[in-house]
Amino acid sequence: MSQPVNDLFLRACRGEAVERVPVWIMRQAGRYSPRFRAVRENVDFLTLCKTPELAAEVTLQPIDELGVDAAILFADILLPLEAMGKELIFAPGKGPIFPRPVRRREDLAELHRPDVEESLGYVFDALRLLRRELAGRVPLIGFGGTPWTLASYLVEGGTSKHFEHLLGWSWRDPEGLAELLDTIAETSVAYLSAQIDAGAQAIQLFDTWGGLLDAERWNRIARPPLEKILHALAGTVPLIYYIQGGAHLLATVADLPVQVLGVDWRQPLSAVRRIIGPGKALQGNLDPTALLGPVEEIRRQAKRLLAEGAGGPHIANLGHGILPMTSVEHARAFVEAIQEGPAG
Amino acid sequence: MSQPVNDLFLRACRGEAVERVPVWIMRQAGRYSPRFRAVRENVDFLTLCKTPELAAEVTLQPIDELGVDAAILFADILLPLEAMGKELIFAPGKGPIFPRPVRRREDLAELHRPDVEESLGYVFDALRLLRRELAGRVPLIGFGGTPWTLASYLVEGGTSKHFEHLLGWSWRDPEGLAELLDTIAETSVAYLSAQIDAGAQAIQLFDTWGGLLDAERWNRIARPPLEKILHALAGTVPLIYYIQGGAHLLATVADLPVQVLGVDWRQPLSAVRRIIGPGKALQGNLDPTALLGPVEEIRRQAKRLLAEGAGGPHIANLGHGILPMTSVEHARAFVEAIQEGPAG
Repeated sequence: MSQPVNDLFLRACRGEAVERVPVWIMRQAGRYSPRFRAVRENVDFLTLCKTPELAAEVTLQPIDELGVDAAILFADILLPLEAMGKELIFAPGKGPIFPRPVRRREDLAELHRPDVEESLGYVFDALRLLRRELAGRVPLIGFGGTPWTLASYLVEGGTSKHFEHLLGWSWRDPEGLAELLDTIAETSVAYLSAQIDAGAQAIQLFDTWGGLLDAERWNRIARPPLEKILHALAGTVPLIYYIQGGAHLLATVADLPVQVLGVDWRQPLSAVRRIIGPGKALQGNLDPTALLGPVEEIRRQAKRLLAEGAGGPHIANLGHGILPMTSVEHARAFVEAIQEGPAG
Repeated sequence: MSQPVNDLFLRACRGEAVERVPVWIMRQAGRYSPRFRAVRENVDFLTLCKTPELAAEVTLQPIDELGVDAAILFADILLPLEAMGKELIFAPGKGPIFPRPVRRREDLAELHRPDVEESLGYVFDALRLLRRELAGRVPLIGFGGTPWTLASYLVEGGTSKHFEHLLGWSWRDPEGLAELLDTIAETSVAYLSAQIDAGAQAIQLFDTWGGLLDAERWNRIARPPLEKILHALAGTVPLIYYIQGGAHLLATVADLPVQVLGVDWRQPLSAVRRIIGPGKALQGNLDPTALLGPVEEIRRQAKRLLAEGAGGPHIANLGHGILPMTSVEHARAFVEAIQEGPAG
């Protein structure tokens, strides 16, 4: 017997009519889940990313456990930077570290344009495996970081409080930084195109740190390398641009050639829609910490989210990744309350 | 001979005509300055705050070194929380730590309402000393944190990435958190009133983390304790409300009973003014990392800032604290370019 096909997510991406609002959760394959932690116990983070069978296993977990309407490949946005020749370490409890950050034009010589099939083949293997195992049950999302956000980690050498190396470079030598961003964009095009070839049915681009820039500087610095990617991928699969802390950039990103705009929780979707106009589906945006509240409150917030999103195509999600301290039961309450619809 | 009196800053706060735009810099008494580091070498951070002669000394340094138009007391927003009974540690390189954070309603019993003259008298002594030493040369600013921002440190136990304890509490037990915020507001009223009595000629309230909330939740959670303070201080000295990452809250904070709104660098002041209307002076908002660029670029940005702020009363500043890696020469270039005026 063939399994039922749930393509609600893809139809919502394209702005088509859907029977109900689809829902998935950023970082849904993650540490909040005991099943994920059980896999992670035996293997470090990068090995998990690089072992297609294990990456596929944790990618599938939330489909069963939460009943979400889309799968998103378990991977990390920084993998292509490692493939470009920069050592990448995930120290437990410390987040990503690039021991040799790129901070000046001279450092660019240390980067190379990788053969993505060779250096990132494990990602494409995982995607092929997942498409077979999913068999249409839910769509499969691939993803990457925007060049600006990838550069933020590569230049700072990891996470940062003030991003002074990245931003300092942007004031000191904008042409040199533009070269870095363009180099990252070129590899991203190859990487994301190969994800699509391997079966990714949508691509989400994470711009976690795009909001560091004002609109004028975002347009000048962050937009060109991002558009290089978007234009190269145009006409393939639905593209989702997610920006965190970008309330001041909404009018600016409204014209990006993507089908879906993902936003954080800082503004209701109705307000976002007023600013960006009717041309895009919206994805988001419940505050992830709302899932730390009681179930009745989670349900109330889910219904409010449906009401806020009702003015156009909507894919329900959190406004940022689910927090490790969230209980599976609470994550499931959110998914169920969305899937019941506004009246449920 | 009496020194010249520079009250440009106070007149700009009140929306009065000024010959030129006044300028000061958040964290102007700070680690970027070798003279500050020389003092700090011999004394830990909290001792520096608590020794009026030393606090006054570093407060005065940038008046001579940069020629800014206002002095701001060297202190820390968290001092009143220590006075409320919570141990506060500044571990080198780690930022502030509360070893016993307040995370549940039951923890409120550990807080008391301090006699501020007794527990924070060193702050008022420093202010009195400074007013004598300044003798009208430039106005003296006192400051505190908003209850929401103070609570963020007290609940998380220090700085935080996701603020999950604070925000989780807000969903789980909003009444308990409201009680904490109100308790902090009560002590803040006593603390800031005493600063004014001791000679502070303006008060800046830092809402570094106000932007974590959407407008509806900011109004419900963060506004009542803030307004308690603002109403108590009304009619005394000019009040400045500074919000970081608050682009989505500008329309919401526009009606706060303060004379000055301080903002970060993410939106040009002209856009901020369009949203908040003509009733307030604006303070800010050059990106602190712009001071890491070349002097010609700093000058260009300073002139652009003057043009952006020209639609109403403006106090030039950075959009956030000056970074430790900034050179004194670059900070001075910013101050001078502002003081020359748009044509300079």
